Amino acid sequence: MKPNPDRFLQDLHELRQIGAAGIGKGVQRRAFSAADLTARSWLADRMRDADLTPHIDPAGNTFGLADGRSLLVGSHSDTQPEGGWLDGALGVVAGLEIARAAKDAGGPPISCVSFQDEEGRFGVLTGSDIWSGKLVLADADRFYDTDGVCFADARTGIADIAGEFLQHDMFNGFLEMHIEQGPYLDETGLKIGVVSDIVGICDMTIVFEGRQNHAGTTPMHLRQDAFQALSKFNTLLNDRLRNVVTPTTVWTIGHIALHPNASSVVPGRAEFSMQWRDGDADRLARMERVIRDTASEVAKDANMSVNFGALMGIEPVAMDQRMRDALEVAADQHAPELWRRMPSGALHDASNIATVLPAAMLFVPSIGGISHAFDEDTDEADLVLGLQVLATAAEALAS
Amino acid sequence: MKPNPDRFLQDLHELRQIGAAGIGKGVQRRAFSAADLTARSWLADRMRDADLTPHIDPAGNTFGLADGRSLLVGSHSDTQPEGGWLDGALGVVAGLEIARAAKDAGGPPISCVSFQDEEGRFGVLTGSDIWSGKLVLADADRFYDTDGVCFADARTGIADIAGEFLQHDMFNGFLEMHIEQGPYLDETGLKIGVVSDIVGICDMTIVFEGRQNHAGTTPMHLRQDAFQALSKFNTLLNDRLRNVVTPTTVWTIGHIALHPNASSVVPGRAEFSMQWRDGDADRLARMERVIRDTASEVAKDANMSVNFGALMGIEPVAMDQRMRDALEVAADQHAPELWRRMPSGALHDASNIATVLPAAMLFVPSIGGISHAFDEDTDEADLVLGLQVLATAAEALAS
Repeated sequence: MKPNPDRFLQDLHELRQIGAAGIGKGVQRRAFSAADLTARSWLADRMRDADLTPHIDPAGNTFGLADGRSLLVGSHSDTQPEGGWLDGALGVVAGLEIARAAKDAGGPPISCVSFQDEEGRFGVLTGSDIWSGKLVLADADRFYDTDGVCFADARTGIADIAGEFLQHDMFNGFLEMHIEQGPYLDETGLKIGVVSDIVGICDMTIVFEGRQNHAGTTPMHLRQDAFQALSKFNTLLNDRLRNVVTPTTVWTIGHIALHPNASSVVPGRAEFSMQWRDGDADRLARMERVIRDTASEVAKDANMSVNFGALMGIEPVAMDQRMRDALEVAADQHAPELWRRMPSGALHDASNIATVLPAAMLFVPSIGGISHAFDEDTDEADLVLGLQVLATAAEALAS
Repeated sequence: MKPNPDRFLQDLHELRQIGAAGIGKGVQRRAFSAADLTARSWLADRMRDADLTPHIDPAGNTFGLADGRSLLVGSHSDTQPEGGWLDGALGVVAGLEIARAAKDAGGPPISCVSFQDEEGRFGVLTGSDIWSGKLVLADADRFYDTDGVCFADARTGIADIAGEFLQHDMFNGFLEMHIEQGPYLDETGLKIGVVSDIVGICDMTIVFEGRQNHAGTTPMHLRQDAFQALSKFNTLLNDRLRNVVTPTTVWTIGHIALHPNASSVVPGRAEFSMQWRDGDADRLARMERVIRDTASEVAKDANMSVNFGALMGIEPVAMDQRMRDALEVAADQHAPELWRRMPSGALHDASNIATVLPAAMLFVPSIGGISHAFDEDTDEADLVLGLQVLATAAEALAS
């Protein structure tokens, strides 16, 4: 089978006209918006042209089915409120191109898919959450977007064309291609990332409670300054985590709320978000212990109290070894010395599909690491290289 | 002359009934509120009873005048939105008691005063700002409180009783007694603080601009995390300032705004307040250099930019040496080994009056350092001790 790079790029550019917005190649195509439904209708037409059978399920996931049990290849075509032309659309059009190249070649059986609401207008990865069984449709129906529209009402737009949910065993695996959404490949000059695992995420709110005081009359040595506790915690934590983490582990303090947050008042309270991500569940747990111990120690030394909010977590998901191997063989063939194994720091539909089917992912570079923005972009040569690696792996896996 | 501790305490308790609120001995008596005007009318009656001449100026500053050139003793009787019974009222009633004790004794000439709006409903130390000539009445008239009431309208409540502004040379000096509003005296068991100077305040907004990024896909070594820059700056600054400051110098990061302030996003921007206070203008300038150099160095190391807002400043004000000496002699007499020299970390009316008259201040302890709160308090024995020190100094200075 021979995927057609020109047809692939032409379809990518055609798709980005549906919902084109902002600057450059920007797109606004939120799940179940008019542009999203138009895009799915356009996709169904391309599937029909390729002799694939379009099928939309009650959650809006849009499949292009080959005959018989097949390999599924795809991603999502909905976007963030301000999105780029690639993100999930890249993986959807790559799936389409590979499925039709297989059809053109008389096999192997490859189907394609665009999952719905990966970008979380209503939930988080809503369409693949539902199809994988993690989320019940009736529960999703009660999810509201920030404008007060609920999922149940939004999906009435497909009520007359939606069929049943497909059985998972119609497929023997799932491949997803995506832009990296980070700077790693771009900065190192590499072209392909074979995803080893999709990282787990731990999120916890931590609060230091000190003593609010007058910033003029309270001597330094009598202060219980909650921001100073936060700063000390951060410094110690950065040092201590070095012994626990790998180069791909990340941790972030992204949200801070001081109280009363006034220039003339010693902060009595510092509430902040502590988030950490890694592909290894044991490492996430070790990091949690370091975080809790360090915060408790800082609070004790400063004669303050510290409170930990509930630990919110998403388990790491390992990619299927056989499918990873196929991607690595293909990467070696098309991009020797220009690929590497890497974890995915972001969530993807593959996180869900991996719970019901063997699944694997491939990344192409994001210029400047820019993502979820109108000016997200990737060199077209890199997109084509990604398509070729994916197609070679898909052919090997589907045969 | 012999001040009467019982009469002094009784008047303090009587005054706190005017605007009594909240818990314990709490008071709500904002400048030009009904309670404030009632309190000033009550004060004028007490002055008349003592054969002092009440005089209210166009800004609402309320004087009780002795005959001839006199020493002025007082503070302010307006409160914060949630105030305690002492704060400025203590200094006002102490001034009243000392003026009438002098009157009872046939001299020396001592007048008393309650300045208006020290707590800044409309401006900052509005009444003494105007009387000292720092602020023009017509400009103050255009100041609005947070409810949209302007100073011009507020002071119509005294239009029919206000006289002219008094000449400064009617007085030969100004003494002010105040609660410390900090924990120092309370924690050390000392009873009297003789104020050496009222500290200067420098205030500057600093902004670190890094790069906003995905908290999952951006490796640690490629981040330009503005909060990490702030934390590093804070750590370095605390270390470097140790070589520049004295034990009474203070510095505070009290306000922080991260952008976009979300747990899953590496902060691209950290805006924060940097405030520092000291009695020595040269030291304030040296601290400013350390602050600017450290922030610039941190930004450069992290390949970020840093921006400094305008430097807002209030110059430090030294207390008059002869008046300080008199307070120290009196403190030695009434509270041997139980007093010390200390700067005032908070602003007071004496900051303004020191620009037009010799001025000095005396502190009594604040229990737990609590201030600007309903539960602000001081032992009555400490209040009386403060009155006695102040009276002895006033008698020496006015004679």
